Amino acid sequence: MLTVEEALAQILADVDPLAGQFTPLEESLGRVLAVDLSSDIDSPPHDKSMVDGYAVKIADVNQHPVSLPVNEEITAGQVPTRELTAGTSSRVMTGAPVPAGAEAVVMVEETELEETESGPLVRIPGQQISPGANILLQGTSIRRGDQVLTAGTRIRPLEIGLLAEIGQASICCIPVPRVAVLSTGNELVPASEVPAAGQIRNSNGPMLSAQARRCQAEVVSLGIGRDDQAELEELIQAGLDADILVLSGGVSAGVLDLVPAALAAQGVNEVFHKVELKPGKPLWYGRADHDGRRSHVFGLPGNPVSSLVCFELFVRPLVDRLAGRASIGMRCRQAQLQGHFRQRGNRPTFHPACYEGGKQGGTVEPVRWQGSADQRALTTANCLAYFSAGQQEFSPGTAVPVYLFEALDD
Amino acid sequence: MLTVEEALAQILADVDPLAGQFTPLEESLGRVLAVDLSSDIDSPPHDKSMVDGYAVKIADVNQHPVSLPVNEEITAGQVPTRELTAGTSSRVMTGAPVPAGAEAVVMVEETELEETESGPLVRIPGQQISPGANILLQGTSIRRGDQVLTAGTRIRPLEIGLLAEIGQASICCIPVPRVAVLSTGNELVPASEVPAAGQIRNSNGPMLSAQARRCQAEVVSLGIGRDDQAELEELIQAGLDADILVLSGGVSAGVLDLVPAALAAQGVNEVFHKVELKPGKPLWYGRADHDGRRSHVFGLPGNPVSSLVCFELFVRPLVDRLAGRASIGMRCRQAQLQGHFRQRGNRPTFHPACYEGGKQGGTVEPVRWQGSADQRALTTANCLAYFSAGQQEFSPGTAVPVYLFEALDD
Repeated sequence: MLTVEEALAQILADVDPLAGQFTPLEESLGRVLAVDLSSDIDSPPHDKSMVDGYAVKIADVNQHPVSLPVNEEITAGQVPTRELTAGTSSRVMTGAPVPAGAEAVVMVEETELEETESGPLVRIPGQQISPGANILLQGTSIRRGDQVLTAGTRIRPLEIGLLAEIGQASICCIPVPRVAVLSTGNELVPASEVPAAGQIRNSNGPMLSAQARRCQAEVVSLGIGRDDQAELEELIQAGLDADILVLSGGVSAGVLDLVPAALAAQGVNEVFHKVELKPGKPLWYGRADHDGRRSHVFGLPGNPVSSLVCFELFVRPLVDRLAGRASIGMRCRQAQLQGHFRQRGNRPTFHPACYEGGKQGGTVEPVRWQGSADQRALTTANCLAYFSAGQQEFSPGTAVPVYLFEALDD
Repeated sequence: MLTVEEALAQILADVDPLAGQFTPLEESLGRVLAVDLSSDIDSPPHDKSMVDGYAVKIADVNQHPVSLPVNEEITAGQVPTRELTAGTSSRVMTGAPVPAGAEAVVMVEETELEETESGPLVRIPGQQISPGANILLQGTSIRRGDQVLTAGTRIRPLEIGLLAEIGQASICCIPVPRVAVLSTGNELVPASEVPAAGQIRNSNGPMLSAQARRCQAEVVSLGIGRDDQAELEELIQAGLDADILVLSGGVSAGVLDLVPAALAAQGVNEVFHKVELKPGKPLWYGRADHDGRRSHVFGLPGNPVSSLVCFELFVRPLVDRLAGRASIGMRCRQAQLQGHFRQRGNRPTFHPACYEGGKQGGTVEPVRWQGSADQRALTTANCLAYFSAGQQEFSPGTAVPVYLFEALDD
């Protein structure tokens, strides 16, 4: 049987990020740039004033108080109409272009304005002002043609601002992977229905869809598939439109476990079935190459804990890879085990657990549950604690790796 | 002038989470429950088999090998039609209800099935099996009427699964706050346009919208408002439909800074103007109570660094509070300063910086930029480093608080 690492290596083998697509700026948040990007402008685009004040010649204002006539007032968005000559000033607002000939800007707070019959005069006390003071020269931060962002960059709000500045209203970035979710089983009814005798509500479908959303995937909900070969094949065919099809249920050994056959009939080739893992051993993974592209198919065991664990361990890293993200999968920490943990059987175990951080390193306490369908106990978990195979008893204080659900929190 | 803490206290004063609203299950991810929720079902809903196997009486299988006729086969979703009597067995699948009278389930792997003329017989080797083995009793994990989730719980994929199980297809949770974003200034053109002389592209609007999305707010983009009283008032009126209206630009001392007047005309009352903070001193905050509800209005300074900082310090905590989230604002860490930092002026400074984590605690290096409109330099930051007021020179190795942008990454 494959180990977790071997299984993950087979899933990610030959998988490249999806091909870049043009996306409106406001939808590109969280995606990854597919190309390098250059600026079509200088930034700032003109020699600009960094303050509200008066553009002047240095010689006019140094040392001695002076009163200067005001040529014009330049607000942001306007262009100067007159060159600044010796013995004059121009009023400029923050961000506005300074007039040609301006050598510095004196802050308005230091000045006094006086209206006279021959027009406004600004009184400036004598000062020590350096050439270029309060002026930011054109192109200081970006020169036209500069490469300002590189392929592979994750687009945060900060990058959104820069992309807007350099005129990228439509951006070539890696699209959001599409994940289709299909729950199988005759016993399932939707959350909106009251289950009849023998039935339960479909909780895996909504949970897996939410996990996929938390990987920033686009979710296609295929609902519930009955244990009927023709119906399953039709739903699987629809699911193969997505980059990833996640099925839950139907991959263990029950008589109605028709899923593997239905997948085969739809051209999905098994890559592996079963992983040395608890819970999640019956995990099935296959691929279908069709219409010039590839769909990845996961058959997850039907119980909620197995589904959750298999999604986080195997599906999330694949979504990350397809989306072009550099860091993939859950973040791992070491934590001190609280209480005893008895490892039963001989498979490494990822047990839902409660992690608490602390200055001296965190602690972790496995969740106690009533069977692997215990959704209620599951909601008390915020991580998976890892217990290696073969060892039978873990005593309090043992250092245990934990895989945080933080990506599920946001 | 108010300190950052005083300003934040005034913003959050008397602010309660928004009133709960019914939301479809699949849209409730990330929201906060507004009410306690009870289960309408037992879980499991019946005594169920935890394995594929045969339901039996203990006395029939203990100690000696036995062959038992198989009454029926019960798959998940079906109900048993016959009570289990001594000397018989029923085939049961994982998750299926066990028949009345069943005392344990023997795993299928341990058995052999034989078809005979009088029907199927299952051969079971003699074994030590306890009463109740492989059976999960009805209601073990949840009893009907149990309160299973409490008001204030953040809905993660794990809670989505539980909510589906207990039939909550529509959930009373705290709605997503609505944030309207309006950029002001005659110099601004949208990212899709080529700026003429004196113009720049609107980068703050898209950046602030993206920051709001990263707080899981619903964003209403109001575009660009010219420096014209009537136009501004109309846009502000539209923005007051939202829970929070964020304006950028128009709150410093320029002659065309009409924003405060336009806000007053629309019934927005100033709470404060100016905060002891660098960058971000001109921050304006007010409130409008109208139509039985309240809108919060922020006037952010127009340069990108100030906008970014003010949003993260003041708007994000308010969004978190309105959304009912327990932890609000950015996460703070201590880090060792790399290089010197010169604190100019006498306001505490939040400087965009680059944090690197490490086993021995992280390090932080302030971003070097060409003025506060340097979007390009800003994209190299992943945190704000805090430098207290009054001290002039911070030397390498000084412990500095950093506020992580991690919430912007996801």
